[in-house]
Amino acid sequence: MFFYNFRRQNLNEDIFPNGAAWMSGKFIKLSEARIPVLDWGFLRSDATYDVAHVWKGRFFCLDKHIDRFFKSAEKLRMPCLINRNKLKQILAGCVKNAGLENAYVEMIQTRGMSQNFDRDPRKSKPRFIAFAVPFGWILKPEEFEKGLDVAVSNIKRIPHSSIDSTIKNYHWLDLVIGMFDAYDRGHNTALLTDEENNVLEGPGFNIFSVDEIGLGTPDRGVLEGITRQTVIDLAKELNLPFNLKQLSLQKLISSKELFATSTAGGIMPITKINGQSIGTGIPGEITRKLHKIYWDKHTDPTWTSSVEDLLK
Amino acid sequence: MFFYNFRRQNLNEDIFPNGAAWMSGKFIKLSEARIPVLDWGFLRSDATYDVAHVWKGRFFCLDKHIDRFFKSAEKLRMPCLINRNKLKQILAGCVKNAGLENAYVEMIQTRGMSQNFDRDPRKSKPRFIAFAVPFGWILKPEEFEKGLDVAVSNIKRIPHSSIDSTIKNYHWLDLVIGMFDAYDRGHNTALLTDEENNVLEGPGFNIFSVDEIGLGTPDRGVLEGITRQTVIDLAKELNLPFNLKQLSLQKLISSKELFATSTAGGIMPITKINGQSIGTGIPGEITRKLHKIYWDKHTDPTWTSSVEDLLK
Repeated sequence: MFFYNFRRQNLNEDIFPNGAAWMSGKFIKLSEARIPVLDWGFLRSDATYDVAHVWKGRFFCLDKHIDRFFKSAEKLRMPCLINRNKLKQILAGCVKNAGLENAYVEMIQTRGMSQNFDRDPRKSKPRFIAFAVPFGWILKPEEFEKGLDVAVSNIKRIPHSSIDSTIKNYHWLDLVIGMFDAYDRGHNTALLTDEENNVLEGPGFNIFSVDEIGLGTPDRGVLEGITRQTVIDLAKELNLPFNLKQLSLQKLISSKELFATSTAGGIMPITKINGQSIGTGIPGEITRKLHKIYWDKHTDPTWTSSVEDLLK
Repeated sequence: MFFYNFRRQNLNEDIFPNGAAWMSGKFIKLSEARIPVLDWGFLRSDATYDVAHVWKGRFFCLDKHIDRFFKSAEKLRMPCLINRNKLKQILAGCVKNAGLENAYVEMIQTRGMSQNFDRDPRKSKPRFIAFAVPFGWILKPEEFEKGLDVAVSNIKRIPHSSIDSTIKNYHWLDLVIGMFDAYDRGHNTALLTDEENNVLEGPGFNIFSVDEIGLGTPDRGVLEGITRQTVIDLAKELNLPFNLKQLSLQKLISSKELFATSTAGGIMPITKINGQSIGTGIPGEITRKLHKIYWDKHTDPTWTSSVEDLLK
């Protein structure tokens, strides 16, 4: 009896979102994009990745994502063997095959596997994978006015001295446990700090504070997000002063405005930290201004490239 | 032309070691054991695992591995739904199907995937996987007299404040980069320290020092290895004093004997640290004594269980 239930439960098929993938030299269905359990990208999380997004048929800042991906792979001593143009064709092909107007497009390189399960990473052959799924949001557009209600976790973000934080990586258990903590306490998501209680980042997003001096975002121990860099570039364009600096929890809570940045949603107001309202408790003027210009850039050819053009 | 080479290179089939696996309610070929790229066990390394070994047809300390696996899964808030007896049958079945006398047997639980690629880990359905491959060694038996030549890395082991080190996990990039560093400098493997330069562990192994007072092994910030616990139990049996304590690099280098412990090879002498000989430069008496009794226990029914019996 137990056995029967057990089998039934485990035989349920996985259900996939709409999407498409590229692996082993060809485009495949997302449900066919599977990696061998022996791949060190799984068994050691020995992998790097990047995520670009497509909005209304156009990639946003695609070259910057590719630059970072190439750098991350090199730092892990497994340079990507696919050149930039071919990579763009693969990513665009995934979006096209999935039939998506707005997409989240991930490129991955793992250490791969070695024939004899040899422990030496130099003996493995790296594996490249790409996939496109529907665009996802850390804060949905209809929740913009409400903003994110964030809890600061007691879990410390994995330090740069252990894992180079400029290499985009899948070492997320600290962030996942932080998310569980935040959910338990009734919040939307988590923020993690370093050992000195400087606030660093959350699961998939950087943070910006706005005070009298201008914009501020942590200068170390964080992923150097492409949306974070976009905000810095937009701040220059808008003549808004900004600083790369450490952000103590106290400084964060006394900010006039706070927002999160991520490829998964862009610029998203944070209106509460640990239940305390930030500023007036609603998204502030600077956040709104940056949010608007960020989305305006999504039709600007200097910031974007069309999926169709990349496939020509 | 480029495209042709590129396709050829990526279309090479993966080559697998001899082995067998269990997934989705059934035994399968190792080459068929593949997880969807969307599984959070891959995309967030949101997973736990354990590895038991089989020697001459008998599992060693299997219940201890299962105890730790169940605890790790619970700490990650995805308790394993497979009961102990069924789990043993699955693991034994993998060994039997692979036809292995000596095996490395891994059990894995991932967070699984959510239908809509939802970021909330509570919405995923955990996935269980097991596989058996031939037994592997961090130090091969024929190299015992030579011992391991280990380099202490500048990379710091991911701290307990970020990831609970008692949860066996795949967050290995610090260890992998440490291995590359060690290889570059001509050593066999790496040892990582904490921020205070206390030596913690290496890729897949704990360490023990032997000095005038007795045996010592780090008391915190390390995986509580089953082989580490076995050494503690054997030390009691042999009336050897032992201490759980911090091990500074200096203390380590001035040890009379040093050894590594791992399911992947048991008790393995470390004869050099950063090129400096430890003790007399050959495996010491305590290391030899523990090594002998460790392997003797592999035929003892109080320490082992037969693969055949578990399948009855």
